[in-house]
Amino acid sequence: MPYVSAPSDVARGHAAKRLAALATPPGALGRLGELGVWVAACQGQVPPEPVDAVRLVIFAGDHGVAQHGVSAFPPAITGAMVRTFLAGKAGVNALADAHGVAVRVLDLGVDEDFDDLDADTRAALTAYKIRRSSGAIHLEDALTRAQAEAALAAGAAVAREEILAGAQLLLSGDMGIGNTTPAAALIAAGLGLPASEVVGRGTGIDDEALRFKAHVIDDALVRAGERAEDPVETLAALGSADLAATTGYLLAAAQDGVPVLLDGLMSVACAFTADRIEPGAAAWFAAGHRSTEPAQSLALAKMGLEPLLDLGMRLGEGTGAVAAVPVVRSATALLRDVALLSELGT
Amino acid sequence: MPYVSAPSDVARGHAAKRLAALATPPGALGRLGELGVWVAACQGQVPPEPVDAVRLVIFAGDHGVAQHGVSAFPPAITGAMVRTFLAGKAGVNALADAHGVAVRVLDLGVDEDFDDLDADTRAALTAYKIRRSSGAIHLEDALTRAQAEAALAAGAAVAREEILAGAQLLLSGDMGIGNTTPAAALIAAGLGLPASEVVGRGTGIDDEALRFKAHVIDDALVRAGERAEDPVETLAALGSADLAATTGYLLAAAQDGVPVLLDGLMSVACAFTADRIEPGAAAWFAAGHRSTEPAQSLALAKMGLEPLLDLGMRLGEGTGAVAAVPVVRSATALLRDVALLSELGT
Repeated sequence: MPYVSAPSDVARGHAAKRLAALATPPGALGRLGELGVWVAACQGQVPPEPVDAVRLVIFAGDHGVAQHGVSAFPPAITGAMVRTFLAGKAGVNALADAHGVAVRVLDLGVDEDFDDLDADTRAALTAYKIRRSSGAIHLEDALTRAQAEAALAAGAAVAREEILAGAQLLLSGDMGIGNTTPAAALIAAGLGLPASEVVGRGTGIDDEALRFKAHVIDDALVRAGERAEDPVETLAALGSADLAATTGYLLAAAQDGVPVLLDGLMSVACAFTADRIEPGAAAWFAAGHRSTEPAQSLALAKMGLEPLLDLGMRLGEGTGAVAAVPVVRSATALLRDVALLSELGT
Repeated sequence: MPYVSAPSDVARGHAAKRLAALATPPGALGRLGELGVWVAACQGQVPPEPVDAVRLVIFAGDHGVAQHGVSAFPPAITGAMVRTFLAGKAGVNALADAHGVAVRVLDLGVDEDFDDLDADTRAALTAYKIRRSSGAIHLEDALTRAQAEAALAAGAAVAREEILAGAQLLLSGDMGIGNTTPAAALIAAGLGLPASEVVGRGTGIDDEALRFKAHVIDDALVRAGERAEDPVETLAALGSADLAATTGYLLAAAQDGVPVLLDGLMSVACAFTADRIEPGAAAWFAAGHRSTEPAQSLALAKMGLEPLLDLGMRLGEGTGAVAAVPVVRSATALLRDVALLSELGT
């Protein structure tokens, strides 16, 4: 697997100089100033070019734990929401249309075969499918090692397709009832934390279900044991086909030097795992939206990332990342289009 | 002066029902859900129509206090920045271009005559000019009562021009070296607070200048005395031509039922003053960006508003409002375009 290079230090230096030379008071652009410099460093050019081509891939999959009461919703919702994405009628579609973001949905491990879809749609949706559902992580491995590696490779292939299609910024989205349980487990394992510190309410479980969810995660962490020291083994033991593919997708973006705007817990759990596999990958990631799930904030802090937005959204699907795309565009526009003080002749 | 009606309770009720009926988990849209309901209530229709036509007016003016050491920049910058807006090269132009927002700049009280500009540009820029600069508020009134009323009327006329031009959402921006001093004074006077609780560093003054700025505000508050109980008298005593015009602009938007996305300290000081003149005006306002100036947060809290963004910007010009426009569009798109659960047949 290729190593991850850092974003361009030379471009970062030139961008910081340009930022300081803009006809604005020092520091007045706040985080938009820093974000513009990051975009320039990722692009390797100053000023950065506008970030027009933004592409989101939603990795869908089911999770064995969802059969065990960790979610407020039944597993059949996963497939129903995949159909809603395909129909362009989900929350992420509405936001993506509003902000000019391309959306692609892929079934990595949904627990159905989508036989009702037309052949072309079904073929595109399931082109990278690894398996139906993933193992219930408190009882068994989510994936075999071979499946985890296949899912990582699938995600990487998808990223490269999106980059070839012209993506200047990649986003990941998720769909899978129960997926906050494996995502929190990936972060707990990587940070060496107990479930009680990472677990959250997902789409809205009650106190009893929250306690049960924590037990599931703790049982899974005990079951994984020392395998949690290896991030790919962690994906096999505690992840899922969709989360492993998302990890491969984010890692390939970093390897290929394309910046990523992260979404909520699932996206961040996979980014965190990608950065475990290839330390330094996180330099290519920015955080879009603060999740209400504690694990997301813990993993972001470990990667040194601070979300751009905190609007209380907990919809998943990639919506937090799409909502933050205009912030990246604002930052890029400021560093690119504001006059230099030297040009004003004042 | 016409009274302010509230946004439609009927539309708000229908919008809240639609929000609850969307194919998303309850509450999953967070603040975007509430914001979409507010847009629908302001528009009086469900679903709300897309907020495409967004118009920003920058009210420029100088301030007598700027001659007395309250700013990190010399007053001549005000006119230079007005020229930068006209050239389309300021921060707010870059953001407005990125997000499809129309920008208009008006000289209400800049301390120069812009004789170098071509006649048409100068005529449009100065069509509503009240005076050159405004009084140094710790020593004298900013405006006569007649000037304050003329500026309020000018701002209202401008708002109505923008509404006739099709604005679905209005923003206000500011330019004027020294303007955080009168803006903080307006808020201190309205809330009955001493300068020490409202004063901030503006574009970047040091500790000594900050102490001096607080003295200026306290002297101004003492000088205004009981006149601060009347918001229009407060504008005359402690405001400026540009701030009074901005107040009239925001008040007219509320009176005409057009929603407003507020910017930083100046915009919020004027919104706060508009709500003092016509209690209930604030129901038409949403807050775009958290300012680092304490007075802004105090006035927003009084109006029950919470900013959508907190990106550490302190550029003024309306940039905080423009940066938040995509958040309003996100909220509107979600309430408008996401499928209802009943449509999915799951």
